[in-house]
Amino acid sequence: MTTLSDRAGRGRLRPAPESFLDASAIATVQAEARGGRRDFLRRAVAAAAVTGGAGAAQAQTPGGGDPSILNLPEHTRALGQGVASEGYGKPSRFEVNLQRRQSPGLTQTRQSSVSFAPLQGLFGIVTPSGLHFERHHQGWWDIDPAQHRLMLNGSDATMLKRPMVFTLDELMRLPSMSRFHFIECGANTGMEWGNVAVPTVQYTHGMLSCSEFTGVPLITLLEMAGADWRRGKFVLAEGADGSSMTRTIPVELIRSGEVLVAYGQNGEMLRPENGYPLRLVVPGVQGVSWVKYLRRIELGDQPYASKDENVHYIDLMPDGRHRAYTSIQEVKSVITTPSGGQVLLDRGYYSLNGLAWSGRGKVTRVDVSVDGGRNWARARLQTPVMDKCLTRFSLDWAWNGDPALVMSRASDSSGQVQPAYAPLRAVRGRRSIYHNNAIQTWLVQAGGEVKNVQLS
Amino acid sequence: MTTLSDRAGRGRLRPAPESFLDASAIATVQAEARGGRRDFLRRAVAAAAVTGGAGAAQAQTPGGGDPSILNLPEHTRALGQGVASEGYGKPSRFEVNLQRRQSPGLTQTRQSSVSFAPLQGLFGIVTPSGLHFERHHQGWWDIDPAQHRLMLNGSDATMLKRPMVFTLDELMRLPSMSRFHFIECGANTGMEWGNVAVPTVQYTHGMLSCSEFTGVPLITLLEMAGADWRRGKFVLAEGADGSSMTRTIPVELIRSGEVLVAYGQNGEMLRPENGYPLRLVVPGVQGVSWVKYLRRIELGDQPYASKDENVHYIDLMPDGRHRAYTSIQEVKSVITTPSGGQVLLDRGYYSLNGLAWSGRGKVTRVDVSVDGGRNWARARLQTPVMDKCLTRFSLDWAWNGDPALVMSRASDSSGQVQPAYAPLRAVRGRRSIYHNNAIQTWLVQAGGEVKNVQLS
Repeated sequence: MTTLSDRAGRGRLRPAPESFLDASAIATVQAEARGGRRDFLRRAVAAAAVTGGAGAAQAQTPGGGDPSILNLPEHTRALGQGVASEGYGKPSRFEVNLQRRQSPGLTQTRQSSVSFAPLQGLFGIVTPSGLHFERHHQGWWDIDPAQHRLMLNGSDATMLKRPMVFTLDELMRLPSMSRFHFIECGANTGMEWGNVAVPTVQYTHGMLSCSEFTGVPLITLLEMAGADWRRGKFVLAEGADGSSMTRTIPVELIRSGEVLVAYGQNGEMLRPENGYPLRLVVPGVQGVSWVKYLRRIELGDQPYASKDENVHYIDLMPDGRHRAYTSIQEVKSVITTPSGGQVLLDRGYYSLNGLAWSGRGKVTRVDVSVDGGRNWARARLQTPVMDKCLTRFSLDWAWNGDPALVMSRASDSSGQVQPAYAPLRAVRGRRSIYHNNAIQTWLVQAGGEVKNVQLS
Repeated sequence: MTTLSDRAGRGRLRPAPESFLDASAIATVQAEARGGRRDFLRRAVAAAAVTGGAGAAQAQTPGGGDPSILNLPEHTRALGQGVASEGYGKPSRFEVNLQRRQSPGLTQTRQSSVSFAPLQGLFGIVTPSGLHFERHHQGWWDIDPAQHRLMLNGSDATMLKRPMVFTLDELMRLPSMSRFHFIECGANTGMEWGNVAVPTVQYTHGMLSCSEFTGVPLITLLEMAGADWRRGKFVLAEGADGSSMTRTIPVELIRSGEVLVAYGQNGEMLRPENGYPLRLVVPGVQGVSWVKYLRRIELGDQPYASKDENVHYIDLMPDGRHRAYTSIQEVKSVITTPSGGQVLLDRGYYSLNGLAWSGRGKVTRVDVSVDGGRNWARARLQTPVMDKCLTRFSLDWAWNGDPALVMSRASDSSGQVQPAYAPLRAVRGRRSIYHNNAIQTWLVQAGGEVKNVQLS
């Protein structure tokens, strides 16, 4: 039997012990699956509970078959560890295999590479900061916040009336906002453009995370600096690490008030790998624009054509031209349970679930198919459904042991619907890297193994 | 100058450098404070920006006064650390002083004690799991989830048709829910009943945290087990640690579907200090009922009068009787910035902010006073405002340097309003420990030092 940490580390689905669903119960499950979830669950476990339940209960409780204290686990008999034995706590030792991981061979150096969040082992919508995906262009730094500055300047002498330099203390004194938002690297699921079937959801979709971010709206700073909104149309955001990451942000996004100069993430200061002490939060836009180690904001009247938007982060279209200045992460979803590399160890009930998101607003519905798209059922959405934020969806499923093609399709409040590969490729071709939001299909094989397949 | 980590560790408010608000700007701030925030902020920084901004900008940018690469910080010149150098990441080294802390002398042993969350240094509503408050009765354990079981039984042979024992794998296979909820120890702010003015918000209100919890609704398990709802009126929840924590939960709470058998917290498995691998989540109810290391649920027809509800967690009333079976955490709020032990290092603009919550539903409004309750202003509430969840509020404030009595008063969707001490004590006396939801007052002294005071 695999342990939880095995499951998390290897991406295998947890086994269902024989005492929960035995052979005779499975027949019942299949028959009842159409009759409603609650009734179906209750009957599914009836036989097992009557036989297996009593014995295990005795072994577990002091009043059971053998009352000897020696049979009790140590945690029931002895003093545990004291409070604040960890001033900053860590996960259980049994969860050590749940890690963000680099894809071996994907890049030449670990300083310009990616580590992927283990989506197959996460719950809800908040990504633990310790498991947040990483994308570095020249490695990460733990910058001294007392030395760090943010400069605001104009592209010419009159674009900002008052060029300014802020310390962290000054920024943190200003009115702040906290918002839950997803961040997705534009290259997430990028290998799939070339028909490479990456084996697990950690590596297909793991450049995706979601946090509560806290910071000062950039519009507040630009107004303090006296921005000339008649001429100012674009902002350049620049990072302090060696890659000198620079990205153009249209002022429309900033003037909506959503773009934050953020210092907080999930209740505490940003983590060093995520740009401590300052990063730009640009909700709905690809991660590269969420400039880390943010040191400079310039207001100008035209796009900046920086290396990271004119040479990198562009897509080759079928007609030979490049698609550039793409930003918005379009509506997308993926089933995380079950997903590639996991194994369904028996037939019967599974709670299919996954994540949906859109850079254009809220997820309005998610449909799930288990037969490769012939039939679809509407999934439940976990509330609250927030703007430009992950939404967890789920659907009950009784697996009958036959091969199944499992897929999800999200729709958003702008009216967009997640596309299949065929119509997406008809427009975009196969030579892109970025902005693949196609429907993901997992094949559940007869033996229970789950693998990545692409349906056209 | 203090660093950010000094501020977090010692609870001092960050200093505002002279370049941000100098003596002449302060006069402007005071005059403009009544004229609206945005305009007020813009003018407040105007003078400083023009003088201080340019010089600092040159030092920070490669194109500045001295182009020598030796003047650039190392993080701008060299390769940083690679991805996944931490498979599970940690906070910055500059944040090490932000810790949950034990109150020295509060208890005789660290195994039966409390560590308090550093509310003065947190943002938004999510508490980082590593800083979640702790309350242990016999120390914490890191229990092997493969060995852990949850038993459901009835108080007699027919209360449950099918007594059951679940493994973690079985529970995690079932349909789950994720919800954001606060958890507050019933004894939070308990020292104040006796007029002890605990110095900082970490120690007055720090037995409070908020997370996204994931688990199976307890109602699902009880229905699978065939509960007799005609007779079943109360549930006993029992933990597996040596304290054998046992608490009675009325079935009304469970039948609403809100009570969860939780395994997930903030996207990952529960932390060991918070009950790994299973804890009961009882939204709105005091933390002691959120039984950790949950091993057994019994359905019965009357309250259980366990040691932790008949001897502990009761309050002595003025008439000599005890108030018992108290559960709901009533509407409450506290200002975290500024708060006790912090120092306002100059006059001028501050963003007053804090947290509000209610065990009866949503926070509907928070009023803030800076003059000891004579005048109140309505604070902004950070959205989304969620049920039985922390809500962050804020209000702009221009401090003129005079002593100020700063307080917040929350109202909830059930119509309750947070009480002052006088009316609360008129009913409850002074000899309680639990369920103090009175209005908290911080005195900002003329020198900027903030201290805890109690207004009747």
